[in-house]
Amino acid sequence: MGTDECVFCAIAQGEAEASLVYEDDTVLAFMDLQPVTPGHLLVVPRGHAIGLEDLDEEVGVKIWQVAHQLGRALRRSSLRCEGVNLFLADGEAAFQEVFHVHLHVFPRFAGDDFRLDAEWRVREREELDTTATAVRKGLSELVGQ
Amino acid sequence: MGTDECVFCAIAQGEAEASLVYEDDTVLAFMDLQPVTPGHLLVVPRGHAIGLEDLDEEVGVKIWQVAHQLGRALRRSSLRCEGVNLFLADGEAAFQEVFHVHLHVFPRFAGDDFRLDAEWRVREREELDTTATAVRKGLSELVGQ
Repeated sequence: MGTDECVFCAIAQGEAEASLVYEDDTVLAFMDLQPVTPGHLLVVPRGHAIGLEDLDEEVGVKIWQVAHQLGRALRRSSLRCEGVNLFLADGEAAFQEVFHVHLHVFPRFAGDDFRLDAEWRVREREELDTTATAVRKGLSELVGQ
Repeated sequence: MGTDECVFCAIAQGEAEASLVYEDDTVLAFMDLQPVTPGHLLVVPRGHAIGLEDLDEEVGVKIWQVAHQLGRALRRSSLRCEGVNLFLADGEAAFQEVFHVHLHVFPRFAGDDFRLDAEWRVREREELDTTATAVRKGLSELVGQ
């Protein structure tokens, strides 16, 4: 999809409707159309980036800073908020659906409908150490680029 | 739980075992003991903070920056990684289990065991606008503090 067909670009340019909560020159935040809970926000960069790979580092920091503030704001709002989740999906395999990077911020409360599931089991230290070595190698390749 | 009983503080102080991937003066990153997928990392501040409310803004930025890099590093590693999720749980209602703030970074691939569920349905603009107004009010209370 080109940026001219990207719904978040259209929102950023004022060409598509959104319930805005915050905007500045770099990022904007608006309500998710299909909220996990009332108050579910998306923080997005104004300029198009698909995911973590092409997201400018400084723009990423701005996204985080706004999300941090919004998480604290949710707890001060009249909305039901006993906890907050931040969630980012980078890539289709990670459940990304709109390919303009976005950080979800949503309030949580006891008895809400949000669920996570995975096969959580404690792993052996040797396995974790091997995995850590693989990640460090990936990191050194990134830093060496 | 006091900080003297906090497992992430113990890791930060070198008093508990962890499979470290990254550390500096402010943050560290290590393998989650119960990974969603192999490569599941936690990025934590060295100093104790419970969640978004008491997390220093600049320390939060460091956590984000390291998570951003680690997400990109996972894609360059030998681990299976077709996508990446970032996830933060702030508060028990949001599924926080260790009360030392941490940002999850984990690789995703087609057919992995991670699942999300919620009652996702598109809401009316009027409802979203009302919610946005509530969040903005929360934000103004935060900024006014």
